[in-house]
Amino acid sequence: MITVGDIWRDIVKIRTGAPLIHNITNYVVMNTTANALLSIGASPVMAHAVDEVEEMTGLASALVLNIGTLSEPWIEAMFKAAGAARRKKIPVVLDPVGAGATGLRTETARRLVAEGCPSIIRGNGSEILALVEAKGETKGVDSRHAAEAALEAAREISRARGCAVSISGPVDVIVKGGDVIRVANGHPMMPRVTGLGCTATALTGAFAAVNPVPLRAAAHAMAVMGIAGEMAAEKASGPGSFQMRFLDALFVLDEDAIASRLRVESA
Amino acid sequence: MITVGDIWRDIVKIRTGAPLIHNITNYVVMNTTANALLSIGASPVMAHAVDEVEEMTGLASALVLNIGTLSEPWIEAMFKAAGAARRKKIPVVLDPVGAGATGLRTETARRLVAEGCPSIIRGNGSEILALVEAKGETKGVDSRHAAEAALEAAREISRARGCAVSISGPVDVIVKGGDVIRVANGHPMMPRVTGLGCTATALTGAFAAVNPVPLRAAAHAMAVMGIAGEMAAEKASGPGSFQMRFLDALFVLDEDAIASRLRVESA
Amino acid sequence: MITVGDIWRDIVKIRTGAPLIHNITNYVVMNTTANALLSIGASPVMAHAVDEVEEMTGLASALVLNIGTLSEPWIEAMFKAAGAARRKKIPVVLDPVGAGATGLRTETARRLVAEGCPSIIRGNGSEILALVEAKGETKGVDSRHAAEAALEAAREISRARGCAVSISGPVDVIVKGGDVIRVANGHPMMPRVTGLGCTATALTGAFAAVNPVPLRAAAHAMAVMGIAGEMAAEKASGPGSFQMRFLDALFVLDEDAIASRLRVESA
Repeated sequence: MITVGDIWRDIVKIRTGAPLIHNITNYVVMNTTANALLSIGASPVMAHAVDEVEEMTGLASALVLNIGTLSEPWIEAMFKAAGAARRKKIPVVLDPVGAGATGLRTETARRLVAEGCPSIIRGNGSEILALVEAKGETKGVDSRHAAEAALEAAREISRARGCAVSISGPVDVIVKGGDVIRVANGHPMMPRVTGLGCTATALTGAFAAVNPVPLRAAAHAMAVMGIAGEMAAEKASGPGSFQMRFLDALFVLDEDAIASRLRVESA
Repeated sequence: MITVGDIWRDIVKIRTGAPLIHNITNYVVMNTTANALLSIGASPVMAHAVDEVEEMTGLASALVLNIGTLSEPWIEAMFKAAGAARRKKIPVVLDPVGAGATGLRTETARRLVAEGCPSIIRGNGSEILALVEAKGETKGVDSRHAAEAALEAAREISRARGCAVSISGPVDVIVKGGDVIRVANGHPMMPRVTGLGCTATALTGAFAAVNPVPLRAAAHAMAVMGIAGEMAAEKASGPGSFQMRFLDALFVLDEDAIASRLRVESA
Repeated sequence: MITVGDIWRDIVKIRTGAPLIHNITNYVVMNTTANALLSIGASPVMAHAVDEVEEMTGLASALVLNIGTLSEPWIEAMFKAAGAARRKKIPVVLDPVGAGATGLRTETARRLVAEGCPSIIRGNGSEILALVEAKGETKGVDSRHAAEAALEAAREISRARGCAVSISGPVDVIVKGGDVIRVANGHPMMPRVTGLGCTATALTGAFAAVNPVPLRAAAHAMAVMGIAGEMAAEKASGPGSFQMRFLDALFVLDEDAIASRLRVESA
């Protein structure tokens, strides 16, 4: 179901069309996710003011909502932007960072799932579980639950809301209704760089901007993340150089690199 | 009009005096513009609270205002800081990031031009056009208008407000009254790194802190940006390594590098 | 008093336990301090909303408060988080960034010292002096006072509040009651990278999370900062590559590197 040719076609569309991706995201990763979007070929914009988010979303090809450093005015802006995205019929990608860690995050994430109409939700196992469990247990923004453990939760959310759910982990699991895709690309250095999960979400936004099938857009993004991570790791001597090489890899990534590395399994 | 010796003299002044540059800027670039200022030899400070901006501007040698991630309290702080800069007679450099994209940005940028008394405005063609046009068209924070297309708008603003206008693009165009300087230095990788336009604005602040002639300060900053960009590109294998090498280049930049690379044209 | 074995034991504890460090810190350094914490082996979380900070601190092993880009809601959050830390009996590390530069910073820093019950205060000489002097003089966030000049102020604060005070400079001075430790590791490139002082504070939080003796935790953190800085400088060609190599160094740091480089003096 996921092929080298389809991934490559999306990348070419991103690089030639440079779709504008509107991000309402956390302070920690604004710079690095903007750079990842530029490196893959998209056009990032970060804007969070209640007074302008609807207008900005109206210019964009996808909206990315990330609750990593949440506060009240930002929550209001996220709902306004989500409404604008719905009216414009552009995809919304949600990253429920730290859902399960605090009530504010869990409740906001659940409300965004219920009322924000995301096309794709991208989180780690803990965060996806927290979207449905009575009591999630998240240790900060790290994942303690492997992606597999969250598979049932993802199915439940996908069926209830009609969205794709992309669970990152050593093996990423992407779910839509009855479909499940597993992406085995990636490298153990990736969790040692802050915000690579958020970068996965931002890139998911770029793929969703050019691919109308949420399950595929999400899987393509995770495959590209993992492949770029493997390419970066070969030239890195620690998390600092890894982060730099990762951006370079997104920029130089070609069809051959995808063909020789892709490890995807559909079920 | 723009000479190697004059650029180098400014750099030496920055490196020996380490002027304090007060930045009220966007979340995306705070880290990278602070690092660029440190690499060239200036002392950056970021402070945005309404309660302290006037005091902080009172300590500074230049004020940089950047509307990249705007919201109401920040707008108020920008006007307060601009007032303090005016009273202290230090230069104000304005970056109207995304003017034309949303009403909030366009209006705020225009008000800052009218009431903030900037010595220098630094933006891309779209943003400069949006400062005068009835209806600007900006695609996010990218430039769709070449710098040349904004030349007349820049002249109009310069004449009305008495400030220099610095338009970045493949060839940068710097305007003050009837004077026009073109800087042809730079590299196509530069727009692939987020916030290098904002970095140009921050460095313009550093040059304005040591050079009382706004047209020259702005042109010197753009020449140094472009030259450092060329130096970085020679050692980069993508946007990640480019960003790192760019900071290194600002740090090691010497008079010989400027002499061998400078491509400036006055009219 | 400070031994290679003790430093190494702390690092092993951090790497195996991955303690959660809750940071309420400034926008400029959120990304880089999170990356430094990940590189040394800790788990960073950044959260500042008044509605969730107590809950987040309740999950953490240490709380880091940094006033680098202060505003009212953040101040309120800091006091709430400090209260939660006190109830949970986890260490609070305070970085009074820019104390002395503006009234808002000086007053907030002094209130946090008085009411926030920090275990460790980490600042440069100017900032530590501003905590006690009638009128501090800070040039932005740089240090004009060598660490030694602030030694008496540090003693006074330490005695009055029972905390350790860690003053960074070419030679770091760490004080607790009558004890003084000097750490001579480090490199002149370090002040050319924004936020390495804030990184020192964040790492101090990681060491405080695994070492119950504040004086030692603070000294261990400064030794590791300085040693990683020396390792980075050997492979760097400017501040850009230094910053990258510094994160790599935190990641690869081993007992041999500490043994061959540590330069500490107790009194």
